[in-house]
Amino acid sequence: MASNSFGKIFKLTSYGESHGHSIGGIIDGCPAGLEVSVEAIQKGLDRRKPGSSEITSPRKEDDQIQILSGLFEGKTTGAPIAFSVLNKDQRSKDYSKLKDVYRPSHADFVYQEKYGIRDHKGGGRSSARETISRVVAGELARQLLSSSGIEIAAFVSQVGPIKMENSSSNLEARWGNAIRCPDDSIAKEMISYIEKVRDEGDSTGGAITCVIKNCPVGLGEPVFDKLNARLASAMISINAVKAFELGSGVKASSMKGSEHNDSFLNDEGNIRTKTNFSGGIQGGISNGNDIELRVHFKPVATISKEQNTVDKDGNELVLEAKGRHDPCVVPRAVPIIEAMAAMVVLDFVLLNKTSKM
Amino acid sequence: MASNSFGKIFKLTSYGESHGHSIGGIIDGCPAGLEVSVEAIQKGLDRRKPGSSEITSPRKEDDQIQILSGLFEGKTTGAPIAFSVLNKDQRSKDYSKLKDVYRPSHADFVYQEKYGIRDHKGGGRSSARETISRVVAGELARQLLSSSGIEIAAFVSQVGPIKMENSSSNLEARWGNAIRCPDDSIAKEMISYIEKVRDEGDSTGGAITCVIKNCPVGLGEPVFDKLNARLASAMISINAVKAFELGSGVKASSMKGSEHNDSFLNDEGNIRTKTNFSGGIQGGISNGNDIELRVHFKPVATISKEQNTVDKDGNELVLEAKGRHDPCVVPRAVPIIEAMAAMVVLDFVLLNKTSKM
Amino acid sequence: MASNSFGKIFKLTSYGESHGHSIGGIIDGCPAGLEVSVEAIQKGLDRRKPGSSEITSPRKEDDQIQILSGLFEGKTTGAPIAFSVLNKDQRSKDYSKLKDVYRPSHADFVYQEKYGIRDHKGGGRSSARETISRVVAGELARQLLSSSGIEIAAFVSQVGPIKMENSSSNLEARWGNAIRCPDDSIAKEMISYIEKVRDEGDSTGGAITCVIKNCPVGLGEPVFDKLNARLASAMISINAVKAFELGSGVKASSMKGSEHNDSFLNDEGNIRTKTNFSGGIQGGISNGNDIELRVHFKPVATISKEQNTVDKDGNELVLEAKGRHDPCVVPRAVPIIEAMAAMVVLDFVLLNKTSKM
Amino acid sequence: MASNSFGKIFKLTSYGESHGHSIGGIIDGCPAGLEVSVEAIQKGLDRRKPGSSEITSPRKEDDQIQILSGLFEGKTTGAPIAFSVLNKDQRSKDYSKLKDVYRPSHADFVYQEKYGIRDHKGGGRSSARETISRVVAGELARQLLSSSGIEIAAFVSQVGPIKMENSSSNLEARWGNAIRCPDDSIAKEMISYIEKVRDEGDSTGGAITCVIKNCPVGLGEPVFDKLNARLASAMISINAVKAFELGSGVKASSMKGSEHNDSFLNDEGNIRTKTNFSGGIQGGISNGNDIELRVHFKPVATISKEQNTVDKDGNELVLEAKGRHDPCVVPRAVPIIEAMAAMVVLDFVLLNKTSKM
Repeated sequence: MASNSFGKIFKLTSYGESHGHSIGGIIDGCPAGLEVSVEAIQKGLDRRKPGSSEITSPRKEDDQIQILSGLFEGKTTGAPIAFSVLNKDQRSKDYSKLKDVYRPSHADFVYQEKYGIRDHKGGGRSSARETISRVVAGELARQLLSSSGIEIAAFVSQVGPIKMENSSSNLEARWGNAIRCPDDSIAKEMISYIEKVRDEGDSTGGAITCVIKNCPVGLGEPVFDKLNARLASAMISINAVKAFELGSGVKASSMKGSEHNDSFLNDEGNIRTKTNFSGGIQGGISNGNDIELRVHFKPVATISKEQNTVDKDGNELVLEAKGRHDPCVVPRAVPIIEAMAAMVVLDFVLLNKTSKM
Repeated sequence: MASNSFGKIFKLTSYGESHGHSIGGIIDGCPAGLEVSVEAIQKGLDRRKPGSSEITSPRKEDDQIQILSGLFEGKTTGAPIAFSVLNKDQRSKDYSKLKDVYRPSHADFVYQEKYGIRDHKGGGRSSARETISRVVAGELARQLLSSSGIEIAAFVSQVGPIKMENSSSNLEARWGNAIRCPDDSIAKEMISYIEKVRDEGDSTGGAITCVIKNCPVGLGEPVFDKLNARLASAMISINAVKAFELGSGVKASSMKGSEHNDSFLNDEGNIRTKTNFSGGIQGGISNGNDIELRVHFKPVATISKEQNTVDKDGNELVLEAKGRHDPCVVPRAVPIIEAMAAMVVLDFVLLNKTSKM
Repeated sequence: MASNSFGKIFKLTSYGESHGHSIGGIIDGCPAGLEVSVEAIQKGLDRRKPGSSEITSPRKEDDQIQILSGLFEGKTTGAPIAFSVLNKDQRSKDYSKLKDVYRPSHADFVYQEKYGIRDHKGGGRSSARETISRVVAGELARQLLSSSGIEIAAFVSQVGPIKMENSSSNLEARWGNAIRCPDDSIAKEMISYIEKVRDEGDSTGGAITCVIKNCPVGLGEPVFDKLNARLASAMISINAVKAFELGSGVKASSMKGSEHNDSFLNDEGNIRTKTNFSGGIQGGISNGNDIELRVHFKPVATISKEQNTVDKDGNELVLEAKGRHDPCVVPRAVPIIEAMAAMVVLDFVLLNKTSKM
Repeated sequence: MASNSFGKIFKLTSYGESHGHSIGGIIDGCPAGLEVSVEAIQKGLDRRKPGSSEITSPRKEDDQIQILSGLFEGKTTGAPIAFSVLNKDQRSKDYSKLKDVYRPSHADFVYQEKYGIRDHKGGGRSSARETISRVVAGELARQLLSSSGIEIAAFVSQVGPIKMENSSSNLEARWGNAIRCPDDSIAKEMISYIEKVRDEGDSTGGAITCVIKNCPVGLGEPVFDKLNARLASAMISINAVKAFELGSGVKASSMKGSEHNDSFLNDEGNIRTKTNFSGGIQGGISNGNDIELRVHFKPVATISKEQNTVDKDGNELVLEAKGRHDPCVVPRAVPIIEAMAAMVVLDFVLLNKTSKM
């Protein structure tokens, strides 16, 4: 398999099951000499954890980061940085009855078929608790990027039918509400919709927009390791993501070249483009404009409504879930999207150090 | 850089510029013992080349595959398979005046900034001629997959505002018209639209749907190398692609869990799902249903209309292109999408041989 | 950096400093369904640890393996297997005075220069405690290999001037003495020599021979990833190793083709060779004979004798070490050599599953 | 397989069989902006080719390099650099009778077993003609290194029983004789010995020493990708190599710590070591001293004397080779050793750009 690693120079290798000892990982390739803020990493984890707002799962997960190696007197040394977050709220008994049942649109069936064995407790390795490791590595990457002025901000731009169509000039405002949408009035609509769906025993999908600002020109490696290709892979590798759009995204199909082309202009000595349908990337390489992408999440698969399914022997049955689950994953996914973007951009910043003599 | 390779076990490394000696590559990791049909590979190239229909560029590119190594008496030997396709229709003079000008929504500017040097002839390495190598490797992968019954079919499902909403039961029909859409009446509308846009000196975007049939359960590697993540990366790495959707795609954002969940059922002993909003992949692993994805292309950046841009010194100027270019890239991109899908699926078939004892 | 991973399919990523929280790692790509003996892994660690015999360091390191993920009801699941061994005997005070001094033939100087920062406590990441992770992963690999009948045995074949020239038919006997040499009378000479050197405040080099039995024909990947190339890299990556020999080794330089060539013969239906100067590998691929290699270790760099050196400001000074260190590393290195061999062979067994259709 | 690539940032992927169309490769990750001397690359090939001296094979191989991509106006552009060398002197008829016979100490048997198919003409992919690609990429790497003042020189230090024990202050002198030994009187002895062996219908082994000068402190990546580990892998991956030694090499086993330790001293402001038993590398990282390594080659397997062997059906038979082969490979291997060293060092120079902030 050997597929639990992400990145080429700055590389995360992660481990851990939902109800095992811990979730964690090893970050290899982090340049030496960075003064690490563990508090900022913890803040990222706090934003990801359940119970961080009234519309997320009431499960109490006290996800405390512990750094096991790679720091000396608070700074990175070039050695691998191992970390772990203990699984405290395990309650395995909740899951015993799901041992032989395949929940619809979960990974139970495919894991059983692929491996011939399956840790059924809370989804095991397929659980979204795995994203804890992404947030840790991503927050570390963000700290490295901030020294170059590169900023990354993701926010919820859609929940079910409620969309935020325009961009925002105050992305910090996203942390001011439970849904992480920088427009407070749209945020209220989104929260109402989620509450309604939750009360129906149902769940809803949603979308997150991510903006990367102050990205230098030149990141991304042609032809197979384009910046957009790696960002797409990073985002689609997150549980429940069904689509990735860069800049114009799916609308590009309907557009004409004369509309879509981004004219170059001379902006006080800097070459920039007038429009940004390209989403900040051309030919797989950043062009200095904001990088803009959108990620679409399916509705949470665990719902309280009755569903038809089968068990591992193929017997059809009716499933009624009783767990403690989010009706909508997107608010908690905001720090995950930011983390993946940070890891990708940092890796290309490092790779780009060898692009010319 | 080292980013011109694709795949882990079955790996393509490609080379070549638009107006250089040749386009080609090395396919490493191809299992020994496959009887190769070079004719089928050539057929793939013929479908990709300009001039293959009345709505594609009238440039005549006679792209003939030559295999340089790795075959013995017509069979693969386990040694790397090198191949090349000579660039015959080079006409470098067409491009000399673009030496110092940055064409809007092309990669000229970012290559110059990233590398400090640029092969401006026809886009150099950033040209879509690079996809010749993808088609060759993909066609070889397809030949390996067909021995396991896995079939891959892509077709044009959108051109500008014209969409094919339903699926087709006769995908072979896509080769019956210039636009590669299996529904002939929609195909006619698409072609009319392209002709209209072309006559305006403009171009149009479009979308391609790809279906992978008979894929066994279990392909894909959690957590970062999910089948969907690799497919996304493969597709987004193709020039001009702006969005990737799996199954429900962007519509997932608006859906409820009770709508989107794919109920399992027992289909005469095989566990399958009733619906396929998951697009054939759950938890990053194929579930035995058809894999269904969509790829959105921006309109071709080269148009005849006047455009504002700058030269490498930042001087603003007006550009009027006169080249021979496609008004719409999607018909020629169909074999490219199939090729990338084939390489991804084959790589996971090979990787999966080690997933259990 | 991203260089703390070993292997392609079966991949160890390790972490940890000598005096940090713990030493550990993540094993990715282990096939699912293996019933793991944690006791056997612990036994490997016990053989590696200081104080395991009268001629090794009297430091008491109680290295207890803890598995953190990847097992379910005692079996591997295909998920990454994380593990850690706590550092209990840290005694950092021993090392404070070495903070600014570069010990001869240690890595202090190069780490400081490369990273601009250095964890000086016991060598930090450059300490041989790092090999704990190798032993854990190697023992797991050995368990997988044993199901195919492949056996790996290393033993001490040289300590200073004392050599064991002949091979042994009873390699199990190596565990019967402190030096891990299967010939008891030579073992006694070796031990006497080490005691003499220790009493002089000095240290000695030594060599280990490793034999891999029942290896199937066909392991190893031409041309850069030959079985011997990977074995060499694996062995030379161990602290203090200065040379690697396969089969005839350095003697090959002095031999004639008519002496060195291994004639093929038909051994009751199996094609084998009469001699084995090739060391079981031809053209980078195992040929079914025993794989035989030798690894040479330099004398331990930490000695009690006075030595000239410099501090980080370049001031010359005289160093007198007082630590608790081994006078000879080879007995403790036996399980490390076996571990590296096991990881290499297993990885090629897995890779070989895709070599032909 | 996917094992025909070498390097991480500066990466060669090679292809080609002894009697196929050509030998070549793709160099990916070469920084942009290098003015390439194709003449210098050709000179490297000329030194490698048969017939370059009276003691090498009289076969006339006119190995002309052709660069297919990646250069623009003589400079690297960051795009992959493809190259090929046509196979002109193919004479396949020489080999037809070896179709079913396994030559002793060649790779015929293992290729047949591993792949189930084998290109028997001149060894196919297992032929040393494969090293042409190494020389091309290595010479390119050398050109990049020379801009940093790093110099690499290999020379023949042993042929059969004739050894050059001391080092030389005039390594350029190695090109002054057919054996590539900088000491002319020893060179004469070596040549006489080879002629004698050749007249007996036999072959001889030999050794090459390689010195890397002006290597900066800090190259090499702990813990698995140590500079010495990668050099070992690079060298052992060359056909016929049986042993690798760094610095003290196999003699380290017999030495005491007080002899072997390299005392640090202050050499006019630069920290250097008094002796260099470490061979210029400590803890896997270059320490600024000369890097010194030795590589041992077995005698050429093809000899004119009669040998016992079997055919593919296991029938025992007597083989009498009549080909045109070298009695000793080491003079032709000198540029190959230099090439591998150059690729390794350059890759670590590039990797090291990300080791600290």
